Amino acid sequence: MNLENAMLSIEKLKEIQKEAKTARGAILKMTTLAKSGHPGGSMSMIDFLLTLYHMIDIEPDNPHWQNRDRVVMSAGHVSPAVYSTLAAVGFFDVDAAISQFRLAGSIFEGHVEPDVPGVEWASGNLGQGLSAGCGFALAARIRKTAHHVFVLMGDGEQQKGQLAEARKFAVKYKLNNLTAFIDYNKLQISGKIDEVMPNNIMDCYLADGWDVIEIDGHDLIEIRDAILDAVENDNPTLILAHTTMGKGVSFMEDQHKYHGAPIKEEHLSLALLELGQKNDLEKYKELRSRFILEKFLPKPKKDFDLKLGKPIVYKDKTDNRSAWGNAVADIAKLNPEAQLAVFDCDLQGSVKTNAFEKEMPNNFFQGGIMEHNTAVIAAAVSKEGIQTFWADFGVFGVDETYNQHRLSDINHTNLKVITTHVGLDVGEDGKTHQCIDYLGVMKNIYNFKTIIPADPNQTDQVIRYISGKYGNFLVPMGRSKLEIIKTRDGKIIFAENYEFEYGKADLLRDGSDAAMFVMGTVAGRAVEAADRLAEKGISIQLWNVSCPIDLDEDALQKAAATGTVFTYEDHNVQTGLGNSIADKMMQLGLSCKFHKFGVEDYAFSGSSEEVFKACRLDVEAVVERIEAVMRGDV
Amino acid sequence: MNLENAMLSIEKLKEIQKEAKTARGAILKMTTLAKSGHPGGSMSMIDFLLTLYHMIDIEPDNPHWQNRDRVVMSAGHVSPAVYSTLAAVGFFDVDAAISQFRLAGSIFEGHVEPDVPGVEWASGNLGQGLSAGCGFALAARIRKTAHHVFVLMGDGEQQKGQLAEARKFAVKYKLNNLTAFIDYNKLQISGKIDEVMPNNIMDCYLADGWDVIEIDGHDLIEIRDAILDAVENDNPTLILAHTTMGKGVSFMEDQHKYHGAPIKEEHLSLALLELGQKNDLEKYKELRSRFILEKFLPKPKKDFDLKLGKPIVYKDKTDNRSAWGNAVADIAKLNPEAQLAVFDCDLQGSVKTNAFEKEMPNNFFQGGIMEHNTAVIAAAVSKEGIQTFWADFGVFGVDETYNQHRLSDINHTNLKVITTHVGLDVGEDGKTHQCIDYLGVMKNIYNFKTIIPADPNQTDQVIRYISGKYGNFLVPMGRSKLEIIKTRDGKIIFAENYEFEYGKADLLRDGSDAAMFVMGTVAGRAVEAADRLAEKGISIQLWNVSCPIDLDEDALQKAAATGTVFTYEDHNVQTGLGNSIADKMMQLGLSCKFHKFGVEDYAFSGSSEEVFKACRLDVEAVVERIEAVMRGDV
Repeated sequence: MNLENAMLSIEKLKEIQKEAKTARGAILKMTTLAKSGHPGGSMSMIDFLLTLYHMIDIEPDNPHWQNRDRVVMSAGHVSPAVYSTLAAVGFFDVDAAISQFRLAGSIFEGHVEPDVPGVEWASGNLGQGLSAGCGFALAARIRKTAHHVFVLMGDGEQQKGQLAEARKFAVKYKLNNLTAFIDYNKLQISGKIDEVMPNNIMDCYLADGWDVIEIDGHDLIEIRDAILDAVENDNPTLILAHTTMGKGVSFMEDQHKYHGAPIKEEHLSLALLELGQKNDLEKYKELRSRFILEKFLPKPKKDFDLKLGKPIVYKDKTDNRSAWGNAVADIAKLNPEAQLAVFDCDLQGSVKTNAFEKEMPNNFFQGGIMEHNTAVIAAAVSKEGIQTFWADFGVFGVDETYNQHRLSDINHTNLKVITTHVGLDVGEDGKTHQCIDYLGVMKNIYNFKTIIPADPNQTDQVIRYISGKYGNFLVPMGRSKLEIIKTRDGKIIFAENYEFEYGKADLLRDGSDAAMFVMGTVAGRAVEAADRLAEKGISIQLWNVSCPIDLDEDALQKAAATGTVFTYEDHNVQTGLGNSIADKMMQLGLSCKFHKFGVEDYAFSGSSEEVFKACRLDVEAVVERIEAVMRGDV
Repeated sequence: MNLENAMLSIEKLKEIQKEAKTARGAILKMTTLAKSGHPGGSMSMIDFLLTLYHMIDIEPDNPHWQNRDRVVMSAGHVSPAVYSTLAAVGFFDVDAAISQFRLAGSIFEGHVEPDVPGVEWASGNLGQGLSAGCGFALAARIRKTAHHVFVLMGDGEQQKGQLAEARKFAVKYKLNNLTAFIDYNKLQISGKIDEVMPNNIMDCYLADGWDVIEIDGHDLIEIRDAILDAVENDNPTLILAHTTMGKGVSFMEDQHKYHGAPIKEEHLSLALLELGQKNDLEKYKELRSRFILEKFLPKPKKDFDLKLGKPIVYKDKTDNRSAWGNAVADIAKLNPEAQLAVFDCDLQGSVKTNAFEKEMPNNFFQGGIMEHNTAVIAAAVSKEGIQTFWADFGVFGVDETYNQHRLSDINHTNLKVITTHVGLDVGEDGKTHQCIDYLGVMKNIYNFKTIIPADPNQTDQVIRYISGKYGNFLVPMGRSKLEIIKTRDGKIIFAENYEFEYGKADLLRDGSDAAMFVMGTVAGRAVEAADRLAEKGISIQLWNVSCPIDLDEDALQKAAATGTVFTYEDHNVQTGLGNSIADKMMQLGLSCKFHKFGVEDYAFSGSSEEVFKACRLDVEAVVERIEAVMRGDV
């Protein structure tokens, strides 16, 4: 931020004061026209928003200008204030925003969305914006750019625990390019904050080591000075702005019912009169009726120009975790100037990111036991074009943070989530740590691809593959050392001559009596089972599926042609690979006998082998279960 | 807690001091024998744990005694300390715990689990225990019992944001029967807390309004006095206990490597010598080898003895939300003495719990914008045998809190989650608020049943049904007023003569050309589509599926017999009803043409009708899509 430009004159502030009346008018028009939306908080926050946008470095004609200051609106429901402000400073025409607000197919959605020029981050789920702001602030450090990051929040959302995580992270990493703002109007949707859920906001920020500047959030001089002080301060700073909900219209002020509801059309003229604005709603009604629904697709992002190196080929039993750790360290070594980031949540030794940290110590970030926060920070960093990995146990990297990933995906992020300790292969930690639902959970998120490698060699190739791609990927893996998968005559299958291709199933064994699909940790066991069955005269066509979200239709056709299909996984039997295969086969009109082997209930705490056995998913049990089906007993 | 009994004499404390040495020995033996586990924190917490258990009111022979004081171990990984303590005070034989620790099929799992007598709450996902403790403390108030609740936590987990939510809740509801304890050994798995993620623990508790007592966590007199002070204090109180990781064995003290790893067998004798214990590991090896794996099933809980009343029959367009609100208020009215609880997260007006609050003001709890915390509190309250409902929007009640529900389910809770604003029927709030994944997400949790009512009449019956049941249920519903579903000749289908039966599909229209399965909000639209198609000469057999997790096999057989099956839902097309139906049909060997209509990508912000249209899920589009298939175009 250019401090000289930011030192707004009194004349300029007077202009902004006038502009704020127009913006308040726009807020009322768009919400009344749409018959929904959140005018109350929009009107309490607008003075700050407008002043801020007149101070920061932006290029409205070039909204993705790399050196722009970033503004994250965490309280996504005050979209009317955001749209009015962005229009006022020139990002788009205010008539479009007013007339299309909350209209299906328009970018001017109920909650801010990054398709709108000038919007950095979709929100709507409260409490995530400060984490995103930490991510953007950290990205500036990684990219060595000087941009400042402002996070604008509501006061109600201060109740969300994720904010306490973000505060700690900002202080640990001394994010002095981060300024937070709270619109402290003391009302939330149900009523007074002091009655709904009392919260000592200032004390909480101070306890976590932030500096706090308290201001009147409707006094533009105080706003300007607070922003200047915060930007110059060498510590994360909160501007706590006392405001009035519905500010500017007498009958709306301090009324919590206007948090989430617009004023009625018959009251609009009166309100606009108080703001010195004319009521031209009819014009917008007409514009609205002429809007043509079209779908805005996110621009395709180009892949990363990184040297991906030559695959490492493991010949001896190795855990996929180590293969991931070695691959990412190798990529760092090959690309010393590249913008990479790896995040950890207090499990570095287990998730094998030490080698990467050694290679690029400044690009490794320890997020502590704060998974919600880390998921969002890593996603925001990734959105800045930094190739970003977050490694964690499956239960934390998937189960605990599903909703963070969902919102990140809506934000078109570029996050690589590497989860270890998935399935039943978690050591003795027991059912709370057995992430047997990663696929079932993540296949709900439209643009998150899941790739599950079968052994360390495939893991190496998968990590190199995703390192070259833009987009969100999950790569789950177990804990144990795995046998290297080989052909019947002992050749390593995922060796130099293999190249990972997204969506392609790997034929591990050919066969004709029945087919079996497997994923991840059990692939090696399945090879052993198939070989044992072959000795018994049952010939199994064995497919490894590393991409269960985008299935290989050819493989399904060939498998169905055998007449009997099995699926085998250490995943919840209701929602995993077997479920995806069944769904796709029905859609393709493939019919055959079909049997799923998977985890049928919460499992025990024990060694992986013991747990597989208890769940009837060890090699012996699978051989028996297949034999029983082939005999016609089941 | 009986304060007189709790005033332990110096002699008694000396005994406990001796007992603590034996317990430390047990901790070392079990972890070394299992070759895994967390001895370091177990040894720093054991002095407090043992002293506490000698002070509180418990009946080891009757672990579920209703008036017992509750102890929640939030740091589930210090299970060795918990098992040693529970054995020391008589809940079970210490030899069983030592020999079976982390052995598949034993109750002595890696992280504490409620199958162990004396364990109140499974943990292992950090940061949730204080919320569970709030729930148990609140339950005492609802049940009018005098038990005190102690929550024991690690220091590393203080980084988790959910704790900040629980602290605020405890202060708002003045839970003076709640005492927290932190084992402040300053180390977490990766190293020093001050390096991993600095955290001003005491300031954070004070900022949220708690009282803090700081003690030496190895001084039994200080421990005793702090517990007495905390119990007598009229405010939620934290005992912040400075401790030493690995306390009691010189070479383990202050070594973070012993957080998550046991000492080697060759060092055991030396360690036990320091503790004055003999090395009898061979005895336990022998016991371990003789353990027979068996599955411990949770005891079936009996249903609730509540008056469920007579169904309300709605004749005019009504929203399911109101039907739920009316039904739960009716149950409260019919059962004025019953133990019921309803939780809200700042959305009371939208989720329609006002009538219940009016009926039972003391049993309604406003949890603020703190969904993680509320999910766990409500679950813990439910586990105390209180029939507990949590109403929230789908994105918060499912997506945001999936992992909380997963852990609650492992805890055999009894929670009823009512989610409104699911599917595309959320008003104009846009994609962040469209919960189109509730089924795909929740079908991963083994004992959470999902029931999706088709109209207000079925909603009423479903709410009465679950009110009589023990167990976890999710009941999702949209926002809009829905047409009452009627037969072709105008009779209300879900009227007085209908009785909800779990797992049974409802035949809404008979037909022979094709069959269609629908769920929830779209059921009424499907009826309209079927009737329009009938006029065009296409006879559709239309099934409403309210229980997609336990499908009606008869209905599937009949549908498949038509030769063509459609599924229609405003849910993610990959993971919803269509996916469940396809999976089940493959397993049943049913083959037919199969087409899924659902949500194929993040949808727009707009009115429900506009959004349905944009997704080609409105009546007109569905009619066209079915006609195209029946003509053979698709």
